[in-house]
Parts: sequence; structure tokens; C-alpha cells
Amino acid sequence: MNRQITLAARPTGFPKESDFRLIESAIPTPGPGEVLVRTLYLSVDPYMRGRMNDAKSYAAPVQIGEVMVGGTIGLVEQSNDPNFRIGDIVAANTGWQDYAVAKGKDLRRLDPNLAPVTTALGVLGHIGLTAYFGLIDICDPKPGETVVVSGAAGAVGSAAGQIAKILGCRVVGIAGTDAKIDYLVNELGFEAAFNYKTIPDYRAKIREFCPNGVDVYFDNVGGPISDAVMFNLAVHARVSVSGQISQYNVEKPEMGPRLTSLLVVYRAKVQGFLVTDYAPHFGEGLRELAAWFREGKLKYEETIEEGLENAPRAFIGMLQGKNLGKQLVRVSGV
Amino acid sequence: MNRQITLAARPTGFPKESDFRLIESAIPTPGPGEVLVRTLYLSVDPYMRGRMNDAKSYAAPVQIGEVMVGGTIGLVEQSNDPNFRIGDIVAANTGWQDYAVAKGKDLRRLDPNLAPVTTALGVLGHIGLTAYFGLIDICDPKPGETVVVSGAAGAVGSAAGQIAKILGCRVVGIAGTDAKIDYLVNELGFEAAFNYKTIPDYRAKIREFCPNGVDVYFDNVGGPISDAVMFNLAVHARVSVSGQISQYNVEKPEMGPRLTSLLVVYRAKVQGFLVTDYAPHFGEGLRELAAWFREGKLKYEETIEEGLENAPRAFIGMLQGKNLGKQLVRVSGV
Repeated sequence: MNRQITLAARPTGFPKESDFRLIESAIPTPGPGEVLVRTLYLSVDPYMRGRMNDAKSYAAPVQIGEVMVGGTIGLVEQSNDPNFRIGDIVAANTGWQDYAVAKGKDLRRLDPNLAPVTTALGVLGHIGLTAYFGLIDICDPKPGETVVVSGAAGAVGSAAGQIAKILGCRVVGIAGTDAKIDYLVNELGFEAAFNYKTIPDYRAKIREFCPNGVDVYFDNVGGPISDAVMFNLAVHARVSVSGQISQYNVEKPEMGPRLTSLLVVYRAKVQGFLVTDYAPHFGEGLRELAAWFREGKLKYEETIEEGLENAPRAFIGMLQGKNLGKQLVRVSGV
Repeated sequence: MNRQITLAARPTGFPKESDFRLIESAIPTPGPGEVLVRTLYLSVDPYMRGRMNDAKSYAAPVQIGEVMVGGTIGLVEQSNDPNFRIGDIVAANTGWQDYAVAKGKDLRRLDPNLAPVTTALGVLGHIGLTAYFGLIDICDPKPGETVVVSGAAGAVGSAAGQIAKILGCRVVGIAGTDAKIDYLVNELGFEAAFNYKTIPDYRAKIREFCPNGVDVYFDNVGGPISDAVMFNLAVHARVSVSGQISQYNVEKPEMGPRLTSLLVVYRAKVQGFLVTDYAPHFGEGLRELAAWFREGKLKYEETIEEGLENAPRAFIGMLQGKNLGKQLVRVSGV
């Protein structure tokens, strides 16, 4: 049987496990030119919260009763495509289920000898590319500049901070547990980091850590943390909006102080992006990320939940910041 | 005697006439290399509200008892600089007073035969340059794109909208009186405009006027008008923050909906700027503005208050949107 996790209800505010439903269906049969993929790992990511809403956005919402979308690592079990053999490990986008049929053009074969295959859902996949293009293309950080990263111990944030380090910047991280702060400073070599759950005056702490102002802000969270950064921008600062995880579970826009005037004071820009807009440049991005990875400059952590049935819990925990690094679900073994 | 208008008190919220004081002092004497300038026209501009606060910003505040800063057109009455003769008309920055001593390097001689001298405080001065660089450098509008301008009947806004027209864009203006709307559509040729004081649902009206979304937003006002534009952005929209006049008189940041997530949805950027950062390029900007002006493509209106003593009233009225086009004060005659 093919276990599938579908959207059972559109969440009001924070999602609950009951917003998902595990159903069973027949294992699909690949047609001409198609491949049957068994899921090994499923990626759960903040953007999925947006797909649960019935709202116009950059991508169509998941409909009630449909299988949740998501990036996966899979094993080819049947193949009608001469480019893929049984036993190949592939990066795919087959969603929250045990099995799926896919077209070869939507699969990327992975070489387990080059890097652990899960990195294709992390630093050597969309996560790393999000950090890479969001930081470099939008912010163009210069050596010696101060870069602040929010959600810094998450998958994207930890990659963005390390790339900023590679580029010669001073990096300050903001995260939500003392263990994450320890990881950022002592494992990843950030110049400073603080726990926003135990330090109430974000604004003063950022000023302390960034006495010359924040040249670049890589924002994953939004809300009051970002407000505090905005008050500490340097002249000609660049803010890359990768995500706004603090705002994904509000029913209507949360109220906050209007700070656009600060953009004039600091002649600063705030720019949002989607990694998919950079698809024509993914090859060059992955080559550079892979080189840094091989040189040991791009570390990563994974938080792995066991079992497809626990994917909703892993997803909800990720939205609550329980993960360190990339949150994955191990769906089956090789 | 030299009448001078000084800052008497730092305003709480909206400025009052009593926040200013008219004093008299002796007419100053130019030293070696200096010039005595008699003020003909004084410019009052939104940025001056910021200088009245004792807050860190991009420029030092005016101190209590100091003469208010401001751009001026003046007549040279004495000159110890061989580059200036008695009777020359100059653009200067000598503030709210009848007379001032200035260095030649801070003056720009005007040719009254080329354009009315007051245009040096308007479309052929910082106002025009603000519209020019804020629109072109930050937003790079393409022919056929939809450009929305707030504060559209003000000095900067009307220039920005006309430049967008010159560049081949569809231009939609937002302003606060029916007379201004009539001016924008029937005099300046904007495709559409609406009066935000009589049309309560800004968001629906912008959607109606911009069915394909807002590619470029030139923002002079901020607040709920800008919120409504943000909900109507097109993908890859560019927002140039020239000013935030709706927010200049608040004591602490006004609360508004957090809309940064929309920047991700639309992959949009919001960027603040100061025209003074473009000083090395003023020459090229002025050449292009002057060419458009001579071709009749860049029209302007002026609202002129008579008498230095009425400058505070003119300034306050401008903050309330009572002016059409550039607000000036005529201080003395040639």
C-alpha cells in the first residue's frame, strides 16, 4: 500500500495534527517514460504553511484531500525511462507519501559517494541555493561588513551565515535556544549570537553586537526581531527577505510599527525573493556550494523524524523552532 | 534688519506656528571670498519636519534658537567672490531669513532667460532630481509598466509621474483633493488618479486602476495608502521610498499591518533613498530634466505664500496637503 498524508482541513492559525490525514491507496504504476520512486526522506519546510491556505500566492494552494507537496529523496523501484535504473537514488518533489510516479525530467540522480544524499534536500539543494542567491544576489555582502541572520540555526539561516563567513563578513545570529546559540558560535564560528527567547531587548543586543550598524540582514522570521534589526541598520543596508516564519500562522496581518521611514534614513532596501526565480542559475550555485562543502566550509545539521506518519508533528515542530538545521522525515530505508 | 525664523520649540506631533519664532538681527557682512545674498524665495519641504526633531537621522537636527534650514533663491547684494556679481540670481541653501552670507561654492548662478528662477527649487532642482533618481535609478521603469505615485500632485510626485509618462509608463496618481485629481488627469495626462479622502477603499480602487498589478510605486506618503498599494504589487515590483509624509508627525511609530511577507510573494523590493546621495550625478540629471522641460514634457505648478513671516503657515499647510505642486514662500522682490 501507498500511505499518503493529505490536507484534511485548512488550519486556522497554527496548524494541528488533525489538519492532516493519513490515507492509503494503491502503489501507482509508472506509464511510458515514467519512474516509480519509493520515498526515503521527506523535507518539511516553512513554505508549506503557505500552501495550506486557500490564498493567492506565488504557488497554487494544496486542495483539501490532496497529498501535501514536498521535496523528497527517493529510490527508483521501477523505470520506463532509459536514463534511470532500478536502485538509483534521486532528488524529487513527490510530496508526503511512500510512493510516487514521476517523469525523469523532474528527477535529479544523486551520487551517494559525493555527499550524503540528504544534503540534496539541504545545503546542496534548494536550502543552500536559497541562502546562496538570497544573500549574494540581493545583498552582495562585502568583506568586513556585518551580516545579521534571523532563524540562524535553521537550515537556510545556518547556510546563509556560513556563506557570509566565507565571504569575509562578521556574522551575528539570532535563534531561539541556548543550544542553537552555542552551535552558531562554537561550531559555525559566528562572531556573536543571541537567544531571543531569553534576551528581551533585541534592539539593545543588536546594537551591542553591531556597533557600526547592520550592513546586511538575511531575514527568515520577520516580526519584532526584524523590527529590532531595522532600527540598527547601517547606511546603504540591504535586507533579503527569505521568509517570515513568525507571520505564517496569523489569520490576518499582525500589527507592527511602521518603519518604512527608516529605509529613507538609512537609504536601505528590503527585497523578497523566491529561490525558484533563480532556476537558470542553479547549476553555478550548486557548483560553488559543493566546492565549499568539500572544503569543509559549509557544515550542516539535520533533525530527523522517523516515519511518514510523524511528518505532521515534524512539520509543526519545525514551525515552532524545535529543529536544529534541516528538518527531515525518514520515510523508509534503502 | 535681517528677519529670521528660528525653531522655538520641538513640535509634539503636528507642528504649530508657535513652534517657530521670528527674530531680527543685523544684516551680516560678507568676509573675504563671501557673498551677501538677499532671499527672494524660500522652499518649504516635508524633510524639514524631520530636522525639527531631536533625533538621529541622516542630517543633524536644527537646534532650538537656530534659523530653520531650507533651499532658497537669492539676489547677490554684495560680493567678495570674483565669480559672483551684484545682481546675480543664485540658488542657495540659506534658510528661513531675509539675508545670509554664503560661500561661492555653495551657490549656483541661475539664468532667468533659460527658465523661471523658481524652477531651481522645483523641477530643475532637488525636487526634479529626487523624482528623477528615485524613479529611474531605484525602479528602472519599462515602457508599458504601471507606475503608481502617492502624493502625486505635490512637487516631487507630479515630477515623478511625468517622468514615468515620458518613459512610456501607465501612470496612476493618488492625491487628496478633487482639484488635484483633475490636474493629474487633465493637465499632466496621468491615465488615472483618485482622491483618497473621498474613496475609502484604496485597495479596490488601485486594483481597478491597475488590473495587472503595480510594477513601480513611487511613495511619498506611507501609511494606509502604501499598504493598499503593497497588496496590489505585480511580481518583481519596485518601490521607491521618497518620503513618508503621513508619518512625519507621529511621536512614535504608528502601528500598521506587517506586510513584509508580500515582498516574498511578489519578489518585490522597497528601497529608500536621499537625493543628496546622487550629488555626483546631478549634472546629468539636470541636463535631462532641462531638456524635457524645454520640450514641454515636464510641467509644474507652484503654490506661493507671500512674506517670510508666513513661512510657518506655508510649511504647515504643505504638510497638510494644501499645496498644488511646489510650495514656495516669496520673501522679497527683485
